[in-house]
Amino acid sequence: MKHLLTTTDLKIEEVKEILVDAQYFLDGGTWTPKENIFVANLFFENSTRTKCSFEVAERRLGLDIIPFEVSTSSVSKGESLYDTVKTLEAIGANAVVIRHSKDRYFDELKGISNVSIINAGDGCGHHPTQSLLDLLTIKQEFGSFEGLKVAIIGDIRHSRVARSNADVLVRLGAKVVFSGPEEWFDNELLENGDYENIDTAIQTSDVVMLLRIQHERHEVKGKRTVEEYHKAYGLTEERERQMKPGSIIMHPAPVNRNVEIADSLVECERSRIFKQMQNGVYVRMAVLKKAIEQSEGSDNNVNTNKKWPVAN
Amino acid sequence: MKHLLTTTDLKIEEVKEILVDAQYFLDGGTWTPKENIFVANLFFENSTRTKCSFEVAERRLGLDIIPFEVSTSSVSKGESLYDTVKTLEAIGANAVVIRHSKDRYFDELKGISNVSIINAGDGCGHHPTQSLLDLLTIKQEFGSFEGLKVAIIGDIRHSRVARSNADVLVRLGAKVVFSGPEEWFDNELLENGDYENIDTAIQTSDVVMLLRIQHERHEVKGKRTVEEYHKAYGLTEERERQMKPGSIIMHPAPVNRNVEIADSLVECERSRIFKQMQNGVYVRMAVLKKAIEQSEGSDNNVNTNKKWPVAN
Amino acid sequence: MKHLLTTTDLKIEEVKEILVDAQYFLDGGTWTPKENIFVANLFFENSTRTKCSFEVAERRLGLDIIPFEVSTSSVSKGESLYDTVKTLEAIGANAVVIRHSKDRYFDELKGISNVSIINAGDGCGHHPTQSLLDLLTIKQEFGSFEGLKVAIIGDIRHSRVARSNADVLVRLGAKVVFSGPEEWFDNELLENGDYENIDTAIQTSDVVMLLRIQHERHEVKGKRTVEEYHKAYGLTEERERQMKPGSIIMHPAPVNRNVEIADSLVECERSRIFKQMQNGVYVRMAVLKKAIEQSEGSDNNVNTNKKWPVAN
Repeated sequence: MKHLLTTTDLKIEEVKEILVDAQYFLDGGTWTPKENIFVANLFFENSTRTKCSFEVAERRLGLDIIPFEVSTSSVSKGESLYDTVKTLEAIGANAVVIRHSKDRYFDELKGISNVSIINAGDGCGHHPTQSLLDLLTIKQEFGSFEGLKVAIIGDIRHSRVARSNADVLVRLGAKVVFSGPEEWFDNELLENGDYENIDTAIQTSDVVMLLRIQHERHEVKGKRTVEEYHKAYGLTEERERQMKPGSIIMHPAPVNRNVEIADSLVECERSRIFKQMQNGVYVRMAVLKKAIEQSEGSDNNVNTNKKWPVAN
Repeated sequence: MKHLLTTTDLKIEEVKEILVDAQYFLDGGTWTPKENIFVANLFFENSTRTKCSFEVAERRLGLDIIPFEVSTSSVSKGESLYDTVKTLEAIGANAVVIRHSKDRYFDELKGISNVSIINAGDGCGHHPTQSLLDLLTIKQEFGSFEGLKVAIIGDIRHSRVARSNADVLVRLGAKVVFSGPEEWFDNELLENGDYENIDTAIQTSDVVMLLRIQHERHEVKGKRTVEEYHKAYGLTEERERQMKPGSIIMHPAPVNRNVEIADSLVECERSRIFKQMQNGVYVRMAVLKKAIEQSEGSDNNVNTNKKWPVAN
Repeated sequence: MKHLLTTTDLKIEEVKEILVDAQYFLDGGTWTPKENIFVANLFFENSTRTKCSFEVAERRLGLDIIPFEVSTSSVSKGESLYDTVKTLEAIGANAVVIRHSKDRYFDELKGISNVSIINAGDGCGHHPTQSLLDLLTIKQEFGSFEGLKVAIIGDIRHSRVARSNADVLVRLGAKVVFSGPEEWFDNELLENGDYENIDTAIQTSDVVMLLRIQHERHEVKGKRTVEEYHKAYGLTEERERQMKPGSIIMHPAPVNRNVEIADSLVECERSRIFKQMQNGVYVRMAVLKKAIEQSEGSDNNVNTNKKWPVAN
């Protein structure tokens, strides 16, 4: 794993290694690279959790960070993502963390050879470190994934999280069901799990994973008001009372309070929402460690690497 | 002092300790926390002095800084201040420095328990580190506050500085007078000092503290032109010549040259304007030290801290 | 050299020292200042290469960086460049790196005495570190400058790079020719080199240095379409085939692919475009080292430096 692009690309063995490393870091374990490692965080979409989480993870590993703000970069002069990453490579970046609104933006970065690319979310596609932190949170709670029932509820169609999670949870032995407004369903996703009525899903699952209504991406509430959405598909206080003993609530955040979930439940006993965020730091440390270890030994110096022959 | 929200909350004993620590740092003294401390600077209003000053103070103390830009954070997706700070807490922040346009924004952060909150200015309310750096500057000059006369001149009503300073200066034994356009007066403030004619105030005070005309907050010049304001209430070259021997000029900056103060006086002998900025770094080091010391020992780890029981 | 403002100001001896130091850093050499050095990067224009390059150079030298974003600073309250730099000086900055759209912005900073100013590009004026990295790239290739022919092609009039480079290349013994659309010519520049037909220039030069069409500065294509410009003055695949054996292609980037240069040539064997970027880091390390060395020993502490006498 030199790049981390999608959870689908990760072998189950790799997923397990990352979770072990993440728990090791959470328990106070340390690791630093053999030499100075430079990393840049390219966030083409707004973010608090993911960006800050990577920033903390990088500092905990002792990496050097090259600050990069899209709005004040040459991207605003029309420079392409490829040329931007290629530039950072030339300047000495060993890894770049990228969030971009375009699905599979990383396909145009195939030519990049000396930089590890860590996907921090691509359009409606993948968000592998979010999946991994969700998995860590579930593992901490239940010890294993085998036989667990996980309900993923809400805006399935536009959710990077739903895709990444459904795929890997099924591979790990869990059962996944989807719920929420039918018009947001995606037949492609249904390969990994059935659609279930909202009340059944909430009452019978070990993990109730709510998705964020992405107001900023599109008009998602359809013809419903926020209150109607909450009543029809949200985790209300009443629905929470029907949850299985020992079951937990998850949400990738930012939470729309009283839309996906009642305000009072965000910090309730079942909620692992802030624990997920905390786990995110350790999962990202593990992912960065893995990427750096794979790259160490390879020479990142353009001048020595390439003979720069000139055609005569 | 785990949080620093207002100068009013500070006991005189705490103020004095901070001033001693600040002078210690200025004189080359050092202090570093026992363990890695993460801090985030959340500036919801533009700032050069205060933000850069905190950034330098944090680096001098060896803290780890989590970069945070409001415009590229999830705040632009509508995430609340509470959820933002709660997120930073989960990710590992030990302290957050906040400037926000809302008066007493910190009241909605009562539920935050593991992060020290340092107020870097709230609306028209308080700006405690500015007060503290003003105090340090005065103390360096006069040794003590007892019996000093301090004139605070200008836009009293909208000034965070006026409020914070008047309160603490009076508690320290100084006499405070206010001057400037009457329509900007505030009866609440007048408990701490009388209104005085501009010329009398300037001629009889040890410290002439000018306030900034906050063009960005409201139309403050009233019906006056900038030139009329300067003539009526500004520190002109002529007024400076009438100042008491040994008296000094202060201004929180940014200065509107030739409005509050004549251009030629900004760097004159009496001016302590840039010395105030320098002192700001050391005062902020002292404040951060105090906050960190109060927090050390308390366990900031969400997972170990909370048993995360699940209702059965 | 305490400040680096223009290449014209640099003596040839200083240029040579910087190139030697840069190569030393590139070859793995290290240097760190004797005491903590604070530096701020003030970019009033968008930049990826130059800004990131300085950021990496500063970290490699172990400097402390004060983050500064123009848009969230007091510059947006109308604070002048002078007052901004003066503030950073008071706060403890030892050096500031500035890119600004105004030609010779540094003329208004004459009063700044305790901070090194490194020009990272002023309007259409100078860009000395770009010149220096170009020189390093040429020196690596040809060993010396004596007798080399360098063609500078494109938007000469608005190019910071053209001015800086032509001047210093001629002083180093190279021959410079200019080419591109005649309406962009500049008589002032022609003192340092003749105008030459595009095909002749490309066929007879050792270094073909293309300039960027600055869409963001003005309507530069004139009445031509992008395709017509490329055909008339761009480095097409056909023109590249006519280049002298051993000759190289340079471009300061960001590249407008298929405008100044054919897409396929950006990473071709002759291209040193990404090598230039890499060299930029080492040249900037050398420049910062020189500026810091010149400042060391001088006391940057406002309080001890100045007696702050008060007129009696």
